Amino acid sequence: MSAAYDALLKRARELALLGSTSSLLQWDQETFMPDRANAWRAEQLAHLAGLIHRLWTADEVGRWIAECEAEGLASDSDAAVNVREWRRSYDRATKLPSALVEECSKTEALAHQAWVEARASSRFAVFEPLLERLIELARRKADLWGYPESPYDALLDAYEPGATTAEVHRLFEDLAPRLSALAAKGVRAQEAHPAPSLPPGPYPVAAQQAFNREVAAALGFDFQAGRIDTAAHPFCTGLGPRDCRLTTRYDETDFTSSLYGVMHEVGHGLYDQGLPEAHYGTPCGEAVSLGVHESQSRLWENHVGRSRTFWEHWFPRAVHHFPQLAASSPEALWRHVNRIERTFIRVEADEVTYDLHIILRFRIERRLMEGELEARDVPAYWNESFEQLLGLRVPDDARGCLQDIHWSMGGFGYFPTYTLGNLNAAMLMRAAVAALPGLEAELASGNYAGLRAWLKETIHAHGMRYRAGDLIERAVGAPVTPQAHLDHLRSKVAAVGS
Amino acid sequence: MSAAYDALLKRARELALLGSTSSLLQWDQETFMPDRANAWRAEQLAHLAGLIHRLWTADEVGRWIAECEAEGLASDSDAAVNVREWRRSYDRATKLPSALVEECSKTEALAHQAWVEARASSRFAVFEPLLERLIELARRKADLWGYPESPYDALLDAYEPGATTAEVHRLFEDLAPRLSALAAKGVRAQEAHPAPSLPPGPYPVAAQQAFNREVAAALGFDFQAGRIDTAAHPFCTGLGPRDCRLTTRYDETDFTSSLYGVMHEVGHGLYDQGLPEAHYGTPCGEAVSLGVHESQSRLWENHVGRSRTFWEHWFPRAVHHFPQLAASSPEALWRHVNRIERTFIRVEADEVTYDLHIILRFRIERRLMEGELEARDVPAYWNESFEQLLGLRVPDDARGCLQDIHWSMGGFGYFPTYTLGNLNAAMLMRAAVAALPGLEAELASGNYAGLRAWLKETIHAHGMRYRAGDLIERAVGAPVTPQAHLDHLRSKVAAVGS
Repeated sequence: MSAAYDALLKRARELALLGSTSSLLQWDQETFMPDRANAWRAEQLAHLAGLIHRLWTADEVGRWIAECEAEGLASDSDAAVNVREWRRSYDRATKLPSALVEECSKTEALAHQAWVEARASSRFAVFEPLLERLIELARRKADLWGYPESPYDALLDAYEPGATTAEVHRLFEDLAPRLSALAAKGVRAQEAHPAPSLPPGPYPVAAQQAFNREVAAALGFDFQAGRIDTAAHPFCTGLGPRDCRLTTRYDETDFTSSLYGVMHEVGHGLYDQGLPEAHYGTPCGEAVSLGVHESQSRLWENHVGRSRTFWEHWFPRAVHHFPQLAASSPEALWRHVNRIERTFIRVEADEVTYDLHIILRFRIERRLMEGELEARDVPAYWNESFEQLLGLRVPDDARGCLQDIHWSMGGFGYFPTYTLGNLNAAMLMRAAVAALPGLEAELASGNYAGLRAWLKETIHAHGMRYRAGDLIERAVGAPVTPQAHLDHLRSKVAAVGS
Repeated sequence: MSAAYDALLKRARELALLGSTSSLLQWDQETFMPDRANAWRAEQLAHLAGLIHRLWTADEVGRWIAECEAEGLASDSDAAVNVREWRRSYDRATKLPSALVEECSKTEALAHQAWVEARASSRFAVFEPLLERLIELARRKADLWGYPESPYDALLDAYEPGATTAEVHRLFEDLAPRLSALAAKGVRAQEAHPAPSLPPGPYPVAAQQAFNREVAAALGFDFQAGRIDTAAHPFCTGLGPRDCRLTTRYDETDFTSSLYGVMHEVGHGLYDQGLPEAHYGTPCGEAVSLGVHESQSRLWENHVGRSRTFWEHWFPRAVHHFPQLAASSPEALWRHVNRIERTFIRVEADEVTYDLHIILRFRIERRLMEGELEARDVPAYWNESFEQLLGLRVPDDARGCLQDIHWSMGGFGYFPTYTLGNLNAAMLMRAAVAALPGLEAELASGNYAGLRAWLKETIHAHGMRYRAGDLIERAVGAPVTPQAHLDHLRSKVAAVGS
């Protein structure tokens, strides 16, 4: 391999060392760090971020990439994959002048504060001027990055490389009316057949931890190379090639809240633990997109964890950890974790209504970036569109357009990946069932090794070799459509109503 | 202030950000990190260590220091203190060629492995060739650093800046025969009056944690700016100006093991939390020496925690957490935690015999560095000297010269600071009692604020302004001698025998 490629590998390794160190600083901030340490932690993170940015946007990196490109690498080689992604990442990083990057950081810090205050008091006016600036900054970034058709393409590309606004728009608008009707049907069915309530708590945190750990280990999470801790919001982060940390939160009145948090994060963690370790820190060893990452978490959480057979298998262990469940049944638990109900809050939404929350956000983001909507228009558009999609009138902005943190962090383009993850998960599960004849029997007996190996082979092992859409298409043999996801939800609705 | 001084402040801040990040990596390694993450963690640490070393040994740092020195700073100014210490640290760092630094790192890594194996099988021969190389490397480093009289001066200076071998030798050889006789007397007294045994366990870990936390908070440890976690060996580390992390370990048959671990580390932690925050990352905001650091831990652990009044005050709370203690008494607990007995193992030694273990190690280290002893001579010298000091025949090297990790890490010069800490602690406690008229009554009522404030004012607030010996002399009004420590131990021995 050329000296330029070797230099890039070396720089990538250095950045992986610093980047994973920064991830530890963030993990600790969310889990164990004492309150008064926050100001210093922010300085540590900013310093490392600056160091990483300077090392990656240095002139020599651009020269090395250009030299590699001039060598004409075999298109299916690891090196070609890495150089292609390094180019993409280097261009994105260097196209923004550092003054703009700093302005974004400062505005996001102010916007976060304003958002916290605005949400707490449900006053959109407090957030509006900051949102306006964030939108303006996002538009400027999109212009600098460039895009084929819509400025939103450039933002989406940060989270879902290669995806286009037009394609997401087509998928989502195809899904919206069908899902809206299905959700209405599901809610009616649920009202007609209310789910039995969970036996009263407490479900002690220690017992929840023990049960969650048992389930996570059965799914294949490697506790020699990972942990589960407690944080305000569940997340999964990789701190090295053999160091994957998950978090969840506990509700002592309902153990299933932490359990599904863990199963979701284990899905992310298995992807992390399934990436090729030899390529750690280079694109060949990295997750391809958030939409594919989310497909892994949703598959384990919803397709495996919210199935009837899951509770048929795990019920005795659940009773072991929570003796009051002896009064319940696998069927009752299954019904409990598959309740369908309208909610204003995305993170509380069930499987059937969830994507409607995302479609709404995508509609707004796309219009904001294409100039059809301004910050001041957001509440009215939100409330109208929410009622159209979910049949509920939003009572205040705290339960409406102020509920999510994403925009306050400048994260336009992130939301669609949640629903792409759901569509991908349903397609992958259907393909796995077709590819692995004994799979349903295996899952019913709590044997997850076959499914995990299939996902590793079809998804994890490839790193960023293929674009997300192509990777899914290779794995399932067809392009991404909402069909498998809708079928999955339809069978849920039918079961809930029976 | 000059541009050179400002540049040094900026560099020092950068190094503090990176150094405290490295400390988090190490803290996590000892507390929560999963096993298989170790190789990557070692790379992260090595990378940060290299970065920090390069940033501090850069030519411009030497120029900035020289420019500041040429300015003629007022000798009692903060700037003068910082520039003096930066000079010392810069010279120490730049006098070693990087090839030697690397050789040390590699040899220490090999020596650590060899030491683990040698200790497990009690075979000195496994460790001897590595110890020989470590001694040779330490001698070369001492020669490069330079020293007034003994090569050991240069090593001691790393942990106890300004201390000399001659002075430590004089203090220790003054102490040795008196302590040896006192220890023999103490052991006989204890044998004549055996301490009552602790009511049988279990003392559950959760109850120990609750009690320890209560005691630590009463001593003044700020849990908004610190934590206590579990690790194989108790330690205290600072991860930022408001982030001090302690660890301890638990023995469910004896809750006092974790308690005194915590009280010891809280002593270190209060020093850390008492340093002037505005000077964080510069010598004016740093601890002056290990011997002074250890004085803080020993003072709280032994002078406060092992006193009769401590148990008179805390007994009811201990019974609250450990109901089986209702069958015991404050007097019985006090006797339990003040048992005097000969042991082969330093870390298990009581207050009266502890320093004899240190004096032995200092005698060996000094002779090794001055060329009077070689690696192969260590076991015989150890065993002979141990029997002379402690009256016990060492049965094997695992319980002899292989017991400590320090030499395998190249840490020659560290051991004396433990006994310097004991001498300092006794002098500080005596001076505090003299300076604060109500102190003994306050301590008897569990009010530690006065003692803590006095230590903050006399010790913590000064950072590295004075050399350790001068700082203690200013605080107590007399030079360091073993007298206060011997008086303290004599009263222990008298009480145990009565």
